[in-house]
Amino acid sequence: MRIGIIGSGMVGQTLGSKLVSLGHEVTLGSRSKDNEKGLAWAAQAGPGGGCGTFAEVAAFGEVVLNATGGTVSLAALRAAGAEHLAGKLLIDVSNPLVFGPEGHVTLDPVSTDSVGEQIQREFPEARVVKALNTVNCELMVEPGRLSGEHNLFIAGNDAAAKAEAVALLGGFGWPAEWIIDLGDISAARATEMMMPLWLRMMGHFGSAEFNYAFRRPA
Amino acid sequence: MRIGIIGSGMVGQTLGSKLVSLGHEVTLGSRSKDNEKGLAWAAQAGPGGGCGTFAEVAAFGEVVLNATGGTVSLAALRAAGAEHLAGKLLIDVSNPLVFGPEGHVTLDPVSTDSVGEQIQREFPEARVVKALNTVNCELMVEPGRLSGEHNLFIAGNDAAAKAEAVALLGGFGWPAEWIIDLGDISAARATEMMMPLWLRMMGHFGSAEFNYAFRRPA
Repeated sequence: MRIGIIGSGMVGQTLGSKLVSLGHEVTLGSRSKDNEKGLAWAAQAGPGGGCGTFAEVAAFGEVVLNATGGTVSLAALRAAGAEHLAGKLLIDVSNPLVFGPEGHVTLDPVSTDSVGEQIQREFPEARVVKALNTVNCELMVEPGRLSGEHNLFIAGNDAAAKAEAVALLGGFGWPAEWIIDLGDISAARATEMMMPLWLRMMGHFGSAEFNYAFRRPA
Repeated sequence: MRIGIIGSGMVGQTLGSKLVSLGHEVTLGSRSKDNEKGLAWAAQAGPGGGCGTFAEVAAFGEVVLNATGGTVSLAALRAAGAEHLAGKLLIDVSNPLVFGPEGHVTLDPVSTDSVGEQIQREFPEARVVKALNTVNCELMVEPGRLSGEHNLFIAGNDAAAKAEAVALLGGFGWPAEWIIDLGDISAARATEMMMPLWLRMMGHFGSAEFNYAFRRPA
């Protein structure tokens, strides 16, 4: 499958490398064609990997992944172009983290809106699925790094798009029964709002190698 | 120990009954002295339980629990009186849920502030510890309802107050090693912001009988 990744940072590169290893054709998108991170990734990715502008990789992909920071995602996707997103599964991995002067990390938007909803509103013909934004990028593509069952969340308005996302996550190693469908795209608020706890827990464990699981009555 | 609970709703009553069963003297506080819920609870609580105004129960308690809704907690604690909170462990169990017209639940404050911080700022002589706000009230007082280890979070500026809170939670059945200290009171933002996910998960499970646990590498 041809997959276009919007964003050539660590998250985009990690997702891209895994997807290439699974036999997909992947291009990593940046604001400019000569982005050093994109070129360096493509050079070592082998024949399955390339890079280009946001618009080029969105046009290339049958599926598009948004791996930009949540506060710049709308701008990046506007540059990608609505016409290159229409009808496509668009997996939004972003969190709208705002790093404050006192070390506090806040979210914008938060509570009454989310990046997932912003993207779906601005690109109504894209089939947006929020996913993967609750774990470190190493875990995104290798859930077996942790012992036992742990969970991912998906949210979106299009049931078929969610099923396609679950299949793609299955390739990363996520069993379908570990993936919890929280409902429509407004549930992206819930998963984006887990970030402050995630950051505190990273401090607690001294590591990003952790994930949530749920306990129920026996 | 004498414990004053601010709030006579389901959370206050559940905490109160458990504390009475553990041998504490408990009073449940309401806005007015003749509050029906407070009187009804006191009537069935036995000699260990009473009720009164916010100010009366705060004056009574060696420890004070805030079990009001987070959007009205400051008003309730102002009625309780700063002089009755000074120097005391004040466990804040609240979440600032705002129920919107379309069924969406939002938080106010959120992200840049929290009820825990609001209370600590307004009552600087109280020793505020945020705790218990991430689980259903039945689970607060009976963690063994779920199988396996699962976690609570505490946050506060006063290490001794947090140790006292952990001891009190131990009486409810929470092993100290299940309780994760997230840091100073600003970490209340992180736990209050878990509410949207908690509400979605309640919908997913069709039950409030669940809690979070964490997975790490083997």
